Amino acid sequence: MITLDLMNTARAVGLFYPPDPASCDESSLGGNVAENAGGLHCKKYGVTKDYVIGLRAVTIEGEVLCTGVYSEGDLFDLTGILLGSEGLLAAVTEIAVRLIDLPRSGPTILAAFDRPENAAQAVSDITCSGVIPSVMEYMDGDAAACSNRYEKTLEIEQAAAILLIETSGETSEKQADQIYDICRKHHASLLKREANPENAERLWKLRRNLSKAVKASAEEKISEDICVPPSRLPELVSFVAELNAEYSFRVNSYGHAGDGNLHVNFLVERPDEVDIGLVEAGVRRLFARTLELDGTLTGEHGIGLTKKEYLHLEFDPATLAHMKKIKTVFDADNLLNPGKMFT
Amino acid sequence: MITLDLMNTARAVGLFYPPDPASCDESSLGGNVAENAGGLHCKKYGVTKDYVIGLRAVTIEGEVLCTGVYSEGDLFDLTGILLGSEGLLAAVTEIAVRLIDLPRSGPTILAAFDRPENAAQAVSDITCSGVIPSVMEYMDGDAAACSNRYEKTLEIEQAAAILLIETSGETSEKQADQIYDICRKHHASLLKREANPENAERLWKLRRNLSKAVKASAEEKISEDICVPPSRLPELVSFVAELNAEYSFRVNSYGHAGDGNLHVNFLVERPDEVDIGLVEAGVRRLFARTLELDGTLTGEHGIGLTKKEYLHLEFDPATLAHMKKIKTVFDADNLLNPGKMFT
Repeated sequence: MITLDLMNTARAVGLFYPPDPASCDESSLGGNVAENAGGLHCKKYGVTKDYVIGLRAVTIEGEVLCTGVYSEGDLFDLTGILLGSEGLLAAVTEIAVRLIDLPRSGPTILAAFDRPENAAQAVSDITCSGVIPSVMEYMDGDAAACSNRYEKTLEIEQAAAILLIETSGETSEKQADQIYDICRKHHASLLKREANPENAERLWKLRRNLSKAVKASAEEKISEDICVPPSRLPELVSFVAELNAEYSFRVNSYGHAGDGNLHVNFLVERPDEVDIGLVEAGVRRLFARTLELDGTLTGEHGIGLTKKEYLHLEFDPATLAHMKKIKTVFDADNLLNPGKMFT
Repeated sequence: MITLDLMNTARAVGLFYPPDPASCDESSLGGNVAENAGGLHCKKYGVTKDYVIGLRAVTIEGEVLCTGVYSEGDLFDLTGILLGSEGLLAAVTEIAVRLIDLPRSGPTILAAFDRPENAAQAVSDITCSGVIPSVMEYMDGDAAACSNRYEKTLEIEQAAAILLIETSGETSEKQADQIYDICRKHHASLLKREANPENAERLWKLRRNLSKAVKASAEEKISEDICVPPSRLPELVSFVAELNAEYSFRVNSYGHAGDGNLHVNFLVERPDEVDIGLVEAGVRRLFARTLELDGTLTGEHGIGLTKKEYLHLEFDPATLAHMKKIKTVFDADNLLNPGKMFT
């Protein structure tokens, strides 16, 4: 089941499945469960685990586990253990989800800024104000330029940073007014408000193309997925700009700013002219800064192969040891997805 | 930390900690975490686990576990495993909770009915309508009479069943209108609407006294905590009425109808005149009927000692075996809370 197919099937009967990774047109629900996927709407509506109410899964021993609504509940949260377990514990064969009422769609706002820090500060202030947009996305000038080059018809104005904010619910017009005021306070150089969903769609295309557009902008793309408290976002985007200025390769960022979750990309246009060791050093500096800002090295993309060497930076030995022991409960011989998550 | 103290501290700065067991004036947050407690507001706002974002806990080996925000996240959902683990895995020493904005309070509705099934059908229809009350409580006539006797100044009209429904948020007046219409459709014999929170408080006192009032109404009270899908609630309340008519002891019920969660009480006024075997047979029949209705034998009160003999009715052997193995990860020698949950 492709995520978008579930979303569309629900929408056809007035219901809503909110977790929507940017790749929802090609991601599968099984993959979303394996990674506990987030997405654009997760700021307001939560991530995959907030919508999965039961799982059927087959263990390496051939036993069928029935969790949540497939059983009569859970002891020690078996559903939660399997969510985001990256295929290390069992093969999920059935997923029960809950759907919510489709909220009334509200205006979409595009706000452009001359400094990334101003955009990030607006995100932090919107969060503090109590307004909860259904989507609040950030992209820096380089990322937006990639998207503009990728699909020239979009013609979004160039700026140092852009916020795309969607509102929903009965009070969406009032929310949009408050968001406008906060963006103005932080010197937005451009503000657009689209109440018509079809016009808003043009703005969202800018966002949806981003991953492919950024990838197409360089020979090599090393993409990180970090997350900090929204109040620390100004410091994070400022650090990304520093990295970009310092190195010969590009460093740009975009992501679910409302959650403090940024995808930071190290973009090498001519790999033969750049020392890969320098790129790796840049990544390590980014991770160190993220942890200083009380952040985490993986927002929504899991651990897999690429983050496992950093696990000891995030988790203390006793806690990590207990996580590893959970693995042995399900797969004592380490046959499922070996080499992933743990070294 | 007493739950109510956290709720009041949050409220003083415009914030809201929603999980509110009826005993919130004496329950502790630690106990709420151990049981993953629900409460009156959980229909709209979720249970304890929806608000706990990190735990510090000490294992029987003396290791300190740091989960969620106390670490940099969770693998295999350590926070979720400890929530509702009834003291079997580790001693929780610190709890990080998230708070939400205090919603605008809306009208409280009291609806009385001549038949319990009509009240239950109204609950089911309200659920289907998409209106989500912040609280939707049911009590049958016997339970309401207990509360009226317990505090005579309340003077709530006698009826076969009463619903107490609270609305919240920007659209609360509109919600209250819809709830009124649905209750009328199901032949409510009395409808009251209190927009003034102080007047509404008198109605809520009827509910808050219930546990003590029902206990005071009989020498012996055996209290069960079952849960069915809201659409099956009419069949459940009808079965409770059947049990009450059939036996010489009283059987009444009240609870979080919006979640399908009822507390069913077997009330023996003169224990020396009643065969306890008959009471136990009644409980077994209630459990069998609950499972037939796709329900669960424990809504929010956990497993503990009294439900452990029924675990095999709810969970298949393979799933239960994995739950037991999780216990051994944390406490291989079964030293923590021995004898609870598992035989």
